Amino acid sequence: MTMPKRDTYTPESLLAVAVEVFNERGYDGTSMEHLSRAAGISKSSIYHHVKGKEELLRLAISRALDGLFGILQEPEARDGRAVERLEHVTRRTTEVLMTELPYVTLLLRVRGNTDTERWAMARRRDFDHEVAELVKQAVADGDLRPDVDARLATRLLFGMINSIVEWYRPSRGGAATADEVADAVVRTAFAGLRI
Amino acid sequence: MTMPKRDTYTPESLLAVAVEVFNERGYDGTSMEHLSRAAGISKSSIYHHVKGKEELLRLAISRALDGLFGILQEPEARDGRAVERLEHVTRRTTEVLMTELPYVTLLLRVRGNTDTERWAMARRRDFDHEVAELVKQAVADGDLRPDVDARLATRLLFGMINSIVEWYRPSRGGAATADEVADAVVRTAFAGLRI
Repeated sequence: MTMPKRDTYTPESLLAVAVEVFNERGYDGTSMEHLSRAAGISKSSIYHHVKGKEELLRLAISRALDGLFGILQEPEARDGRAVERLEHVTRRTTEVLMTELPYVTLLLRVRGNTDTERWAMARRRDFDHEVAELVKQAVADGDLRPDVDARLATRLLFGMINSIVEWYRPSRGGAATADEVADAVVRTAFAGLRI
Repeated sequence: MTMPKRDTYTPESLLAVAVEVFNERGYDGTSMEHLSRAAGISKSSIYHHVKGKEELLRLAISRALDGLFGILQEPEARDGRAVERLEHVTRRTTEVLMTELPYVTLLLRVRGNTDTERWAMARRRDFDHEVAELVKQAVADGDLRPDVDARLATRLLFGMINSIVEWYRPSRGGAATADEVADAVVRTAFAGLRI
């Protein structure tokens, strides 16, 4: 057993440890004991920072959601043709997923057993809904193909973006950069792979 | 407690029950007791059909893999330009995912703690590799855009296809049919959503 270390955590650095454990064990499968062991500080030290693991979940999910909903407030997401706004949102969602990887991964994996989990799922649906509205508008403008149903197109778009959490690791040398991945997603989804 | 029912299972019908439990609880989280309860027959009746849960996993994964590798043997996947073969494989992979939904879902979720799980993951990588080779060949033929890296394109393509297990439910009325979904995937991935 390792000696408990002095508690030098900030809320942010404690959160980073908690999110790692949540993603590894699942939120349900994580106890305060697991968090204490991963952080190397006592449970009472953790309680000094937060009320419990559900508060850590709420903080982590908030960070992912703030990143995602922030995109919708950007000028490029608010002004102009729907298709251009949609391409911007697609590129930025891909970027936020990669820069906030552990937080967005947690958001995508949460299944609703607690109020916080259900809130996370509801907010995620809200975000998907905003994007689906952009897709619908772009189809109505005649800028997106009418032979792919708007709801299905939205699902496939998010399917492509969200799958990045399965393989993207920022530390892995030689792999694609966040910029290259975002470009590839926008090109593939909007222009298609065929020349 | 419900009375155990008479064992009228065939290997196939027992497998269908087991796969449902594996997908719900995770393979690791499933005990023979869970399988016995879900099937409504005793554990010894289950042992009459199979050696244990790992054999059920192997049978279920084999069914998914047979479906997927079978695609690569189809004439349309073997003859002609790489890009046409790739489109065929994309369409058929989407179809097999939907017709064999619980089996492919299990294959996609398996994480390697046992020999059977590791074998499943290795075979899945083999399939991905075969498709990646088609992508590379199609780029070399000048049929796919060179500005999206072939490895990345393969990942995004599978990301889009595999995400279908998250929302597709064949029983849900009013939703897209398997054919519509397969068309949408091929159109989105190869021609793009933009007109």
